[in-house]
Formats: sequence, structure tokens, C-alpha cells
Amino acid sequence: MSIFTKIITGEIPSYKVAEDDNFIAFLDINPNAKGHTLVVPKKEENKIFDLSKEDYSALMDFSFRVAKALEKSVICKRIGMSVIGLEVPHVHVHLVPTNIMTDMQFTHKVKLTKDEFVGLAESISSNFE
Amino acid sequence: MSIFTKIITGEIPSYKVAEDDNFIAFLDINPNAKGHTLVVPKKEENKIFDLSKEDYSALMDFSFRVAKALEKSVICKRIGMSVIGLEVPHVHVHLVPTNIMTDMQFTHKVKLTKDEFVGLAESISSNFE
Repeated sequence: MSIFTKIITGEIPSYKVAEDDNFIAFLDINPNAKGHTLVVPKKEENKIFDLSKEDYSALMDFSFRVAKALEKSVICKRIGMSVIGLEVPHVHVHLVPTNIMTDMQFTHKVKLTKDEFVGLAESISSNFE
Repeated sequence: MSIFTKIITGEIPSYKVAEDDNFIAFLDINPNAKGHTLVVPKKEENKIFDLSKEDYSALMDFSFRVAKALEKSVICKRIGMSVIGLEVPHVHVHLVPTNIMTDMQFTHKVKLTKDEFVGLAESISSNFE
């Protein structure tokens, strides 16, 4: 069972920003930038391009909606999107409010307080349509 | 007119791997890894999340098909996908055959000969469905 499945089941707590029957979005606990969010299919699959075309399309559509909510919640130049997956073998789309290239390189991290995480999650969630 | 529009019109040559009425995919000339491909909508738009939902979905579907062709053409752990766009203000999806994290960080580049580019483009193109 992946760490993300444990978040989906509630075994591990998360700062959730959006959820439906098939997908969940929550704040990355070790963010590249303020508002860095992960979008994850509830069905555990390792590689994004092993998803069925239908599941992939639904994941990308859900990510679009989360990105639009992020744009309304965090001031940034643009929302970057990245799928890598070398660390956790459960598909996840990174959505990162980006101002400079390092925001998308996973080499620099920002520290947020619990209150900041809570405030961000509430803001993004309230902007999710 | 963006550098990608110049590639689309043929003003600048490229190693093309796939094309339809709305999208083009060609090899990144300064690749992170062998097979690094860019998928670009022919309609010039700066930010991916400013695309209409329909155009975004079509772009992601086209990228899925290119990624499947890449998987058949280049040996790697997985195909990484990234959209950043801080440099060229014309939407482009990076698809990178990835083995280690640096393949997705745009900090390390590989040099390929013209013959290697031609061979890669032919292989990916022949696997595109």
C-alpha cells in the first residue's frame, strides 16, 4: 500500500484541497513552493502512461480544475505541472505555483507552518470548481 | 511569433515525430535525455491552463499517444512529463525518457549527433499510433 493510498484512506493525515470518487488532491508536505499540490488517482497505479486512456484523461481533467483553483489562491507567474514518479510508485501529478525554474526542479524546498498549510488548503479548496 | 510557431511553419527545421491538424511533436534540440520530445499546440498560447478545457484535453491526449510511442522507442524507467514554460511563451509539454531525477531537472543535457536525432525521430514516428 503506497503512502498516497494511506492518505486516501485517512490512515495518514493530509491537507486536502479537492476530492471526488476517483481522485484526491492534497498539499505536498515538502513543497517546492507555497501551494505545491499533488493530484492522485485513488486506484493505485505506478506509471501514468500505464493508466487507461480514460483514467488518464479524467486525471488530467481533474488536475486542470485544481490548477485553476491554485491560480486563484496563490500569486505566481504560472502553474507548473510535472509527473515523474521515481520515488513513490503511485501516479501523482505535481502542480506547483512557479516563479523561477528552481520551483520545478525539486531541489529547493520551502518550510511552511501548520497554519500556513491549513490556510492554503482552505483557500484552494474554496476556489475549486 | 514564437520559435515553436517557426518550427510549425517550417521556417526553422525540426526532428518531427508526430503531427495532426492541431498539434506537433518534435525532438528537443537540447535534450535532457535521449528521446526528449516537445508536444506543442499549433495555436500559439502562452500558459497551458489558459487553454480552453477542450484544447487542453486534446493536447494531453495527443501527449499520451506520443508518450506511448516514446516508451516503445527508448529504453528507460518511465516517461516523465513536465510543463513549465518560463522560457518560451508558447505551451509545450516535455516528455522525457527518464532514469534518474536529473533527467527531469533541465540542468543536465546530452549531446546527440544529427544521425542520432534522425534515428530517434524515425523510431518514435514509426511507433506513433
